[in-house]
Amino acid sequence: MANDKKQPRPKAVTPKGFQDYFGADVTERAAMLHKIAAVYHRYGFDALETSAVETVEALGKFLPDVDRPNEGVFAWQEDADWLALRYDLTAPLARVAAQYRNDLPSPYRRYAMGPVWRNEKPGPGRFRQFYQCDADTVGAASVAADAEICAMLADCLEEVGIARGDYVIRVNNRKVLNGVLEVAGLSGDDKEAERGIVLRAIDKLDRLGVTGVRALLGEGRKDESGDFTKGAGLSEAQADVVIGFMEAKRDTGAATVARLSELVTGSPVGVAGVAELEEIAALLTAQGYGPDRIIIDPSVVRGLGYYTGPVYEAELTFEVTDEKGRPRNFGSVAGGGRYDDLVKRFTGQEVPATGVSIGVDRLLAALRATGRIDSKAVGPVIVTVMDRAKMADYQTMVAELRNAGIRSEVYLGNPKNFGNQLKYADKRASPVAIIAGSDEFDQGIVQIKDLVLGAQIAQNATLEEWKDRPSQYAVPRDQMVARVRAILDGQA
Amino acid sequence: MANDKKQPRPKAVTPKGFQDYFGADVTERAAMLHKIAAVYHRYGFDALETSAVETVEALGKFLPDVDRPNEGVFAWQEDADWLALRYDLTAPLARVAAQYRNDLPSPYRRYAMGPVWRNEKPGPGRFRQFYQCDADTVGAASVAADAEICAMLADCLEEVGIARGDYVIRVNNRKVLNGVLEVAGLSGDDKEAERGIVLRAIDKLDRLGVTGVRALLGEGRKDESGDFTKGAGLSEAQADVVIGFMEAKRDTGAATVARLSELVTGSPVGVAGVAELEEIAALLTAQGYGPDRIIIDPSVVRGLGYYTGPVYEAELTFEVTDEKGRPRNFGSVAGGGRYDDLVKRFTGQEVPATGVSIGVDRLLAALRATGRIDSKAVGPVIVTVMDRAKMADYQTMVAELRNAGIRSEVYLGNPKNFGNQLKYADKRASPVAIIAGSDEFDQGIVQIKDLVLGAQIAQNATLEEWKDRPSQYAVPRDQMVARVRAILDGQA
Repeated sequence: MANDKKQPRPKAVTPKGFQDYFGADVTERAAMLHKIAAVYHRYGFDALETSAVETVEALGKFLPDVDRPNEGVFAWQEDADWLALRYDLTAPLARVAAQYRNDLPSPYRRYAMGPVWRNEKPGPGRFRQFYQCDADTVGAASVAADAEICAMLADCLEEVGIARGDYVIRVNNRKVLNGVLEVAGLSGDDKEAERGIVLRAIDKLDRLGVTGVRALLGEGRKDESGDFTKGAGLSEAQADVVIGFMEAKRDTGAATVARLSELVTGSPVGVAGVAELEEIAALLTAQGYGPDRIIIDPSVVRGLGYYTGPVYEAELTFEVTDEKGRPRNFGSVAGGGRYDDLVKRFTGQEVPATGVSIGVDRLLAALRATGRIDSKAVGPVIVTVMDRAKMADYQTMVAELRNAGIRSEVYLGNPKNFGNQLKYADKRASPVAIIAGSDEFDQGIVQIKDLVLGAQIAQNATLEEWKDRPSQYAVPRDQMVARVRAILDGQA
Repeated sequence: MANDKKQPRPKAVTPKGFQDYFGADVTERAAMLHKIAAVYHRYGFDALETSAVETVEALGKFLPDVDRPNEGVFAWQEDADWLALRYDLTAPLARVAAQYRNDLPSPYRRYAMGPVWRNEKPGPGRFRQFYQCDADTVGAASVAADAEICAMLADCLEEVGIARGDYVIRVNNRKVLNGVLEVAGLSGDDKEAERGIVLRAIDKLDRLGVTGVRALLGEGRKDESGDFTKGAGLSEAQADVVIGFMEAKRDTGAATVARLSELVTGSPVGVAGVAELEEIAALLTAQGYGPDRIIIDPSVVRGLGYYTGPVYEAELTFEVTDEKGRPRNFGSVAGGGRYDDLVKRFTGQEVPATGVSIGVDRLLAALRATGRIDSKAVGPVIVTVMDRAKMADYQTMVAELRNAGIRSEVYLGNPKNFGNQLKYADKRASPVAIIAGSDEFDQGIVQIKDLVLGAQIAQNATLEEWKDRPSQYAVPRDQMVARVRAILDGQA
């Protein structure tokens, strides 16, 4: 590093749009993913971990959910090839399913969890590296595979701590929408442009509401800034069919299915789609997943443009308060569906596939928002250093504590200023400090300071009942571990 | 994807030098890292997860262990900046320690685990993405921090399944080497070139042996290809001092320390280094880590050029057979030491730091080589499909099995060819298959096939004693789960 001397110092900054995760932010996510992996495994899914890097050729020059080709990935050239960081876990699965098609079991159930990267403009809450946690079944044409993934998703949510009743998984079907489009007279090859506008319009239901979507189905819509988006030019009657689809949900699954059947009368693909929804509902009921957990809901429109068959989305139904203090439903934490064309890019053969992606950060945020994760990270017991020459004795103490499974450490900074040691213990959220100087060593004792109780006493110092409560005890050296254990148990 | 039609199909290949990990290769590594993280946590270390991407400026334009500046990383330009994938976990720690220096506790004990990337020519067993698993203490000048990491490393090895006696952690000290160089007359500013040659020479002890190193300390060395490497030009007496250092290990720690003291007589830095080794040994003994686990060994020379104080290395001492069938010691699985200059790059302030990096792939390979990981992955119980119309019943069965915690799945491929279903079960290493057709449904029973026993019977078909052993049982439907559980318990 001698040659660095004359150079200006580098800036110590996280690159724009990236994040550093500390302590509990790392371990709580890992614990949640660990639980989800156990559910995936129980359902027969096998782990797959591909590398972060793919050839741009294999990734495809597009993201599934954005409209910008040639953008969105971090890429660099290597000799004649371009390499890039994966932008999701589905594209690498498609590559693997094609590459190892003669060796993998078929159907191939696989799960994957890990970071993905998006080369997007960073914004508040939008990061360029984030976790995904996917499960997909490749090579199963039966909608039993879709039903299975819906059931598994419900199990995952309950396993990590979302109570039954606090979530609902909504199931829709792209084929029903295709049927609706057919009934609305939009099925011909010459109607591709209109179908595109309709798909984009219904994808905006969340944001624009029915009125906004209806405008986009008709002549078009002027947004708040005055920009005009051209509509699909549907007649009122045609638009009614499409809106009817989005609003087809009834009180019971059977009534919803009946309404959808009406809407797609005369369209074979639509009828097939409704039959698939009925079959999924029947299979789920047989497994014990009733409408309290999984329902048919045609208002699930997200991803309908991408998927080719069943589409599903998990929504958390409890309220949280948003940044402005207003109550709102927590919303979607996972989504997926059936896509039959990803492997085809490589092999020319259509391979049926269906899968789900759990939004790791959102689900974790939901668990924290509802107190399902107790984020009070407990720091280590701190063995303070009163006498530097006794370091071996302090190390013996900490070894005893660790051997008893108690998280602990010796203070390893400069021990001169004892106040700094207690400040350090505070910063680490230490529950207990051990103190031993020459007096204690002479008497064969240690001082044990209950830092949680100490903080409570400090807070309530004016109250009579707290005044005389001691938070520090002298105990015989050979009772140190037992006493620390008792204090920790009492704090928990 | 419509516009893909006319393009040639992309190749489905893992990029050169990268790997895909399947099933147990993923979960066994995760389980090992989980155990190591628990030990790190018990020692008071906090998790840190930085993003994969850093600015090239923050990373520094060098790798710690290669001689090529400006190479070795995957980098790309973004506007005026260059971004790159991290090549290790220490450079991001240095950036974090500088960036958050006012918020982090000091000393800051942190652990990190995750992939790192090296832009190197891929070769056999050399990959461009691999895992590291580090623990470092930043801001502790005391060698108690080094001793603690050595003890923690021993605990980690035992926790993952390396038996005591099967490993040794060797501790050396760069300051002792500096003292040796001083005694050999190589301490002046004008001797920097010679010191460099000496450092590189002793780093090659493993590969060249003492004779080769001695040649490099003297006039130079001609290798097998005939290439000549110029030596440091030391006299015989000077070289004796350096070689004496590498061979200073004696039967006991005290004897080794005595020998080192002789070698560095008159060199203050050398004397200080020997004192540090003595202190580390004393602290470790106090914690119960004797020379059966951690020893002072001056022949540890790897990384001496990089580190500034204590250096440590964990070696597995049991024999494995190499690719040519010859027995050899398994060798190093972790190493580390004290480095005081990384944070200085950013802040100008020297911050003492010490840390270890565990070679995740090598340690995992060691566990597999010695049977410490039982890699017989158990596949799911397969509920076969005899009658497609009964899919809801099969789903009910599998839900019961899963609710009992039994990994299981319904066959979701095309059920027409029953042989394919059993082939699939074989490929998945399924322990048990459930079979139920219309006869079984009529009678309220299921057939349970013990696939492990079935395979054994097939293997021993000519032996009388195996001939009549049934591997398939008809059981009442409501006893299915209990019977599967019993078979699985019997197989385990």
